Amino acid sequence: MPTLVMKFGGTSVANLDRIARASKRVAREVANGYNVIVIVSAMSGKTNELVGWVNETSPLYDAREYDGVVSSGENVTAGLMALRLQEMDIPARSWQGWQVPVKTTDAHSSARIEEIPTENIEAKFAEGMRVAVVAGFQGISPEGRITTLGRGGSDTTAVAFAAAFGAERCDIYTDVDGVYTTDPRITSKARKLDKIAFEEMLELASLGAKVLQTRSVELAMRYKVRLRVLSSFEEPSDDAGTLVCDEEEIMESNVVAGVAYSRDEAKMTLISVADRPGIAAAIFGPLSEAGVNVDMIVQNISEEGRTDMTFSCPTDQVLRAEKAMEEAKGSGEINFHDLVSDQEVSKVSVVGIGMRSHAGVAAKMFEALHAEGINIKVITTSEIKISVLIDRKYMELAVQALHDAFELEKAA
Amino acid sequence: MPTLVMKFGGTSVANLDRIARASKRVAREVANGYNVIVIVSAMSGKTNELVGWVNETSPLYDAREYDGVVSSGENVTAGLMALRLQEMDIPARSWQGWQVPVKTTDAHSSARIEEIPTENIEAKFAEGMRVAVVAGFQGISPEGRITTLGRGGSDTTAVAFAAAFGAERCDIYTDVDGVYTTDPRITSKARKLDKIAFEEMLELASLGAKVLQTRSVELAMRYKVRLRVLSSFEEPSDDAGTLVCDEEEIMESNVVAGVAYSRDEAKMTLISVADRPGIAAAIFGPLSEAGVNVDMIVQNISEEGRTDMTFSCPTDQVLRAEKAMEEAKGSGEINFHDLVSDQEVSKVSVVGIGMRSHAGVAAKMFEALHAEGINIKVITTSEIKISVLIDRKYMELAVQALHDAFELEKAA
Repeated sequence: MPTLVMKFGGTSVANLDRIARASKRVAREVANGYNVIVIVSAMSGKTNELVGWVNETSPLYDAREYDGVVSSGENVTAGLMALRLQEMDIPARSWQGWQVPVKTTDAHSSARIEEIPTENIEAKFAEGMRVAVVAGFQGISPEGRITTLGRGGSDTTAVAFAAAFGAERCDIYTDVDGVYTTDPRITSKARKLDKIAFEEMLELASLGAKVLQTRSVELAMRYKVRLRVLSSFEEPSDDAGTLVCDEEEIMESNVVAGVAYSRDEAKMTLISVADRPGIAAAIFGPLSEAGVNVDMIVQNISEEGRTDMTFSCPTDQVLRAEKAMEEAKGSGEINFHDLVSDQEVSKVSVVGIGMRSHAGVAAKMFEALHAEGINIKVITTSEIKISVLIDRKYMELAVQALHDAFELEKAA
Repeated sequence: MPTLVMKFGGTSVANLDRIARASKRVAREVANGYNVIVIVSAMSGKTNELVGWVNETSPLYDAREYDGVVSSGENVTAGLMALRLQEMDIPARSWQGWQVPVKTTDAHSSARIEEIPTENIEAKFAEGMRVAVVAGFQGISPEGRITTLGRGGSDTTAVAFAAAFGAERCDIYTDVDGVYTTDPRITSKARKLDKIAFEEMLELASLGAKVLQTRSVELAMRYKVRLRVLSSFEEPSDDAGTLVCDEEEIMESNVVAGVAYSRDEAKMTLISVADRPGIAAAIFGPLSEAGVNVDMIVQNISEEGRTDMTFSCPTDQVLRAEKAMEEAKGSGEINFHDLVSDQEVSKVSVVGIGMRSHAGVAAKMFEALHAEGINIKVITTSEIKISVLIDRKYMELAVQALHDAFELEKAA
């Protein structure tokens, strides 16, 4: 029998009623002839309660104990859903991470899955079990202690199971009904996409369209796991949601798939840096060590041995970045005249695999922004994405203008 | 270093403040030079919440799933207490049942502990760890699934650990400050006992003095684990509570240690049963199968091949008992004229190892009841206990009269 992975997030299993509704969706796929592996999150609010207790007990907590406490929420949901399915006469049982076992690194609270042996669950499928309900977000370290994958890790668990079991598809049930051309709160013209390529989804996810955890999309891309994002609050249907898949599967597509944004960005510029080989490493090494997530980087042409270096990071990391740069200056590692930061900028990006074969996307983007009188402060490009930093007050306007310019309201 | 086992029940770890207070008691014993194994229950209310969810999801639940869900409460407390102890600079870590592993039978929801290998925890003690916080009430079956020991099973976990590790003592922290000569709500003359023998405690526990789970006392007696019952709400001191120990340790004791009672008993009589070899088995077999906990049994002298058979059971099992007897009569297994039940009786018992060597305890007991005009309906005796069934309305009066008659307000 083919295998399907279904993942239900916290709002989809928030209480016993919702667990019952999710179980009906599972039953539907069992009736469709699938053996199903269900990955569940904790009932919404439970993980936050547990995290709160840990933080109150020990602000600088031992991550091994944190993981043991916080993982318990998923175990409860897994058992309850297995019971609910049994009540519907579907042979089901629950698995906690260590029982599978989901083998991870020992990086507690942010562990990575290393291996998922399939024998135990396959043996039960062979005996007639139809549904394995697995507690998401957790695993077991080489030392036999419980690990967690970090918040949102249940998506990653789901994709990893789909890869390990060669599942036909991995359905991620959430509280949105798919991936949109842009945030529908910014423009009502936003259109739900039927399909989107892994690469595009990855750019959209990392740009702040928080439908799927970035790591889960990376993993899906690497193992070519077909991911479907859909709402657990809509009537079930076979073509609901958005399929995230290999670009080969997408016959027709717009040049640009979507417009993404990231509101709270800061632009920082080191003015008149003494330029020398290795200067970039001398700047970005300390920033990385300080936990600053540098995004865009632009270096001006060097004049008389000095240059300006501009980078962007989330606004809440500006203080850390400034401290790291002053320390590096103090220790003589780098030399610059001034550090200026602009904390009132946002990033807007257009994303699409069609850009690879279509020239003129950048020109069209800049033209659309210019027509609205929006000044571009920094530009970066990749093969399938063009991003600009602009004044934050123009962010919504920019998203709307770009959505119109690329006619994203129309399907390809 | 000597090992001490400390067990904290649900009310003693009901919230973060109480967990912090319990941790202080643990710290005190660490300072006294012990390596400590702490057994914790779930925060009070948590297990009931989980049990409620299971029952609502699946009234006739799969006990394996029940165990997986319900055991999660203890895991949370174990992690939180380990964190709290670490905050106090005490090297501590938590263990879930399967990590130790606490090996049990596969009788889910009422499993028995079969073995507790000590290597893993001993190895950590050898590395300098001072406290192992273990989730109580749970273990792992031969098939690798989570089991629970039944409600109150954390006491049993504690005693089993004390036996396995050869602990100097097993301290059970609860919401009462010790074992009393009788229920202080019935007579203010009730006196806290400093020491009580295992056998006496066993009779008191099974008679409804719900300080300790019966199984845990049985286990303590078998492995000669010195048990101390004490309150987690009083100031710590070395001679707090009541020590439950081998009778050898008790130099002086009253002939009678305490007066116990069980309020809601029923007396049932099968009238004119056709007597034959095996008739007792024919009666009590079906009762046992129907889940009736038969306590006292009295058989009249047989006349002309017929006899009366009287037994007692909890009042809420009377319907089940009647059904089982009617069915046995219907199938021809037994033959009786009538079944009469009296649901307005209570059991009162005097318990004491001193009875073994002192005659006249029964006479004194009957005399005291007679002096109050209390009619005795059924009598049973064991080596260290005399129990009577009486009308429920006299129960408190009987307890007070017996407490006075045996002068239990005075220490030996």
